[in-house]
Amino acid sequence: MPDVNIANIDRDALMDEGLEKILELLEDKKYFAARDELLKFNSVDIAELLEEVTEDKGIQNTVIMFRMLPKDVSVEVFAELPTEDRNKIVEIINDKEIEYIIHELDFDDKIDVLEELPANVVSKILEKTPKSERKLINTFLNYPENCAGTLMTPDYISLEKDWTVREALDHIKKESIDAETIYTCYVKDMGRKLIGIVSLSTIVTSDDDTRINDIMRTEFVSENVYADQEDVAQDFTKYGFLALPVVDNESRLVGIITFDDILDIIEEETTEDIERMGGIIDFDDKDREYLDTPVKQHVLNRLPWLVILMVAYIFTGMIISSFEGQLSQVISLVSYMPMLMGTGGNTGSQAATLIIRGIATGEVEPEDFPRILWKEVRVGAAIGVLLSVLNFARVMLLDGDGAMIALTVCSAMMAIVVFAKMLGSMIPLLVKKLGADPALIANPAISSISDAVALSIYFLMAKIFLGL
Amino acid sequence: MPDVNIANIDRDALMDEGLEKILELLEDKKYFAARDELLKFNSVDIAELLEEVTEDKGIQNTVIMFRMLPKDVSVEVFAELPTEDRNKIVEIINDKEIEYIIHELDFDDKIDVLEELPANVVSKILEKTPKSERKLINTFLNYPENCAGTLMTPDYISLEKDWTVREALDHIKKESIDAETIYTCYVKDMGRKLIGIVSLSTIVTSDDDTRINDIMRTEFVSENVYADQEDVAQDFTKYGFLALPVVDNESRLVGIITFDDILDIIEEETTEDIERMGGIIDFDDKDREYLDTPVKQHVLNRLPWLVILMVAYIFTGMIISSFEGQLSQVISLVSYMPMLMGTGGNTGSQAATLIIRGIATGEVEPEDFPRILWKEVRVGAAIGVLLSVLNFARVMLLDGDGAMIALTVCSAMMAIVVFAKMLGSMIPLLVKKLGADPALIANPAISSISDAVALSIYFLMAKIFLGL
Repeated sequence: MPDVNIANIDRDALMDEGLEKILELLEDKKYFAARDELLKFNSVDIAELLEEVTEDKGIQNTVIMFRMLPKDVSVEVFAELPTEDRNKIVEIINDKEIEYIIHELDFDDKIDVLEELPANVVSKILEKTPKSERKLINTFLNYPENCAGTLMTPDYISLEKDWTVREALDHIKKESIDAETIYTCYVKDMGRKLIGIVSLSTIVTSDDDTRINDIMRTEFVSENVYADQEDVAQDFTKYGFLALPVVDNESRLVGIITFDDILDIIEEETTEDIERMGGIIDFDDKDREYLDTPVKQHVLNRLPWLVILMVAYIFTGMIISSFEGQLSQVISLVSYMPMLMGTGGNTGSQAATLIIRGIATGEVEPEDFPRILWKEVRVGAAIGVLLSVLNFARVMLLDGDGAMIALTVCSAMMAIVVFAKMLGSMIPLLVKKLGADPALIANPAISSISDAVALSIYFLMAKIFLGL
Repeated sequence: MPDVNIANIDRDALMDEGLEKILELLEDKKYFAARDELLKFNSVDIAELLEEVTEDKGIQNTVIMFRMLPKDVSVEVFAELPTEDRNKIVEIINDKEIEYIIHELDFDDKIDVLEELPANVVSKILEKTPKSERKLINTFLNYPENCAGTLMTPDYISLEKDWTVREALDHIKKESIDAETIYTCYVKDMGRKLIGIVSLSTIVTSDDDTRINDIMRTEFVSENVYADQEDVAQDFTKYGFLALPVVDNESRLVGIITFDDILDIIEEETTEDIERMGGIIDFDDKDREYLDTPVKQHVLNRLPWLVILMVAYIFTGMIISSFEGQLSQVISLVSYMPMLMGTGGNTGSQAATLIIRGIATGEVEPEDFPRILWKEVRVGAAIGVLLSVLNFARVMLLDGDGAMIALTVCSAMMAIVVFAKMLGSMIPLLVKKLGADPALIANPAISSISDAVALSIYFLMAKIFLGL
C-alpha cells in the first residue's frame, strides 16, 4: 500500500510541462538531465510519463530512462507500468536487473507482474527464487483469475494475543518494512485460524500494558480465498474498510487485501460492465487500454454481437416481407417504422440499464421482479400516453396523414413502449437468475428483440385500424 | 472512517436468517428480543436490516427499533440509513433525540445529513449548535454540490513541525476520538498553509526523539476545495492514498477526504455515467435507489431523451417519405431497413461506449482524436467487409433477392458501419472538448443520428445500383 506520496498541487499542468522538457532533453540525447526531470515526480507519475515517452519516442528511450532510475524507484515504477511496456523492458534489460526488480516488488505486485510476463521469463525468475518463496508464488499463481486469492498479499502484520501493546508496537516497527499495511493487524490461533483483528489506531490509543487479547475484535468481515473480486469490491464499498482478511475453507488466514488494490478492481469491473452493456465483449486477456489495443482485437471484441444480431435481423426482415403487399398499399406506413422501432429500443434499453446497474450495486435482486415489473408497466404506460399524444399531433398536423394512420401509429407506440419496458427490465433479471452476468445481455440485444416486437405490433395495429 | 468492524464469514446467509427472526419477533411485538437480534450485527448491516423492516413492516416499526438502539449505535446507524428513512425518523422522534444524533455524528456525516434534512429541521438544529460550530457547518453547507468541499471533514490530526515523535504520539492519542483518521497527519505553518504530511506508519517506526520536521513529506498531492468529486475520485484510484488534504485557493488546509467516502462517490458517479449513456438523466436530487424512486420521477428521468429523439425521427420520416415512390417500386428494399439502421446504431454505440469510458477513466483525451479516428476507420472497414460478405450470402441465397439488391445492401452496410464508427467515436470527444459530460450524449442519440445517416446512404446506394 503506498504511503503519502510526493506530488504537487496543479498536477496536470506540472506533468505536461515536465513531459515537454523531458521530450526536448531526449531529442538532444541529454539523458541524465531528462532522468533528473523525471525524478521530480512520484512513481505513479513517472510511470505515466514513461508511457508518454514510449508513445512519442519509442520503447528504446523508455528503457534507457528506466535503467537510469535509482534502483528503489525503478521497482515502484515497474509495478505501475502497463503490461506491454513491462514485457518490452524485460526483453531488453539483463537478467540481473530483472531478478532485482522482481525480488524487491511487494508480494501482490510480484504476482501481478509474474502473471503477465512471458512463461519463459517467469520460469527463469522462479529458478533463482528461494525455495520457500517459490512455493508461495506458485500457490498464488494457481488461484483462478478474478478471485480474492489473486488480489491478496501474505505480507500482513501478525500479532500474538498474549502480547502487550508495547510488545506489539515493537514487533510492528520491526516488520513494517515488508508489510503491505500496518494499520490493521491480525491475530491467529495455533492452527493459523484467524481469531481477532486489531487496528493500529486502537493499539496506539491504548495503554502500553494492555493485552492485545483485550482490545482485539473477535468478530469481523472476512473473504473466502475463492470469492469473486466483484463481491470483494462490493464489501469494501459497503463497509469502508482499509483492508479485509482472506481465509481458506478452514478459516485459516492466508492473506489480506488492501483498499488501494480494490480501487483498481472497481475501475476494471465497471469498465467491463459498461463495455458489455454497449455490446462489446473483451476477449483480450492483456487488459490493454483503448489506444493500445490493436485493430484486430477491437474487431474481435465487437464482432460477436453484431453477427448474432445479424441473424436476429433475418427474422425482422421476414416479418416485413410477410407484410410487403399491405405496405405497398399504404406506403406512408414505412416512414413511421424507424421511429417505432427506435423508440422501442431506446425505452427498453433505459429499463435494462437501470436494472443491470441495480443488480451490479446489489440494490436490485431477482426476487424483486414483481415490484419491478409493476413499476415498469406504470412507467411504460405513462411514457406511452405522452409520446402517443405527441405523435398524434405530428401525424395529423405535420404529415397530414389522416386519423386512421395516426391511430395506428399511436396505439402501436403505446403498446410498444409498455412491452419494451417489460422486456428491458425482465431479461436482465432472468439472466441473473440463470447465474450469468446480466450486463452480457447487451443493450443492442434488447434493441433487436424489441425491434421485432415493435414491427409485429405495428403491423397488427395496421390490420385492425386500416383493415389491411 | 470506520474501524475494523464486527461481522462474520457468510454474511448473506446470516443477514437473511437475522432478518427472518427479527420480522417474526416484530410480528409478536417482542421488540426487545428483536433489538437484541439486531445488535448482533455491525452498524452498516443494522441499517440494511432496518431498511428491510421498513419495506416489510412499515416505518413505524423501524422507528421503534431505532429508538431502542444504544445511543452510540443509533448515531452510526442513522448515518448509514437512506435519506427517506432518515427524514421519516426525524419527523417522529423528539427534538432531544435529533439533537443528540446530529451532535454525535462525524463532521462529514453531519454535513451529509443536514444537506438532506428538511430546511425547518435544519434551522432548528442549527439554533442549538454552539456558534463556532454553526459557522463551520454553514461554510460547509455552502460549497457547491459535488465538489471536494462537500466531501471533506475538518476533523484531521494536526501536528507541529517542531514536535518530537513522542509528543506527536501523545497528541494523536488525545485527539484520536474526534479525528476521522489518525493514519495521515498534517503539518501547517503559522498562516494555516499546509507544509507537510506524515503518516502514522512513519511516526511509529521512527525513534521517539525524531522531529516531525525531519520525517514529514513536504511535497504531496492535494485537492482544491472546489475540485470536482469525479476528479478527486480519479486521484484516489490513481495514487491509492488513504486520505487527501483539501486546500483553499491560498493553499490553506481546510479539511481532508478519506478513501471510504470516495468509494461511495465512485459508485454514485459510475451509476450516473451508466444511466446517462443509457439515455436516463437523473433529475432527482434525493439520490434514491431504483425501487424507492416513484413512477413519476422515473417518467421524468426518462422522458427528455425520448422526446428529443421523437423530433429526430421526424427527419428520418422525411427521408423515407422523399423516397416513398422508389420504395414502392422495389418494396423488398424495406425489409433490409431495420438491419441497416440497427447495425449502424449498434456499431456506433460500441465505439461511443469505449470512448466515453476511456474519457471517464482518463485514458483517452480529446487530443487523441486523429489516432482514434484512424483506429475506428480501420475497425469499421474490417467489420463492414465481414458483415457485407455475410449479408451478400443472405440476400442472394436466403432471400433470393438478386445481385443488384445484394450489392445495394452490402455497399450500404459497408459505408454505414464505417460512418457509424466515426460518428460514435468523434461525438463524445467533441462533447468533452466543449466542456460537457460525454456520457450525456447517450447511446440512444448516437443510434438516432446514425439511423438518419444509414437511411440516406441506403437510398443513395439504391439510386446507384438499382437506378431508382
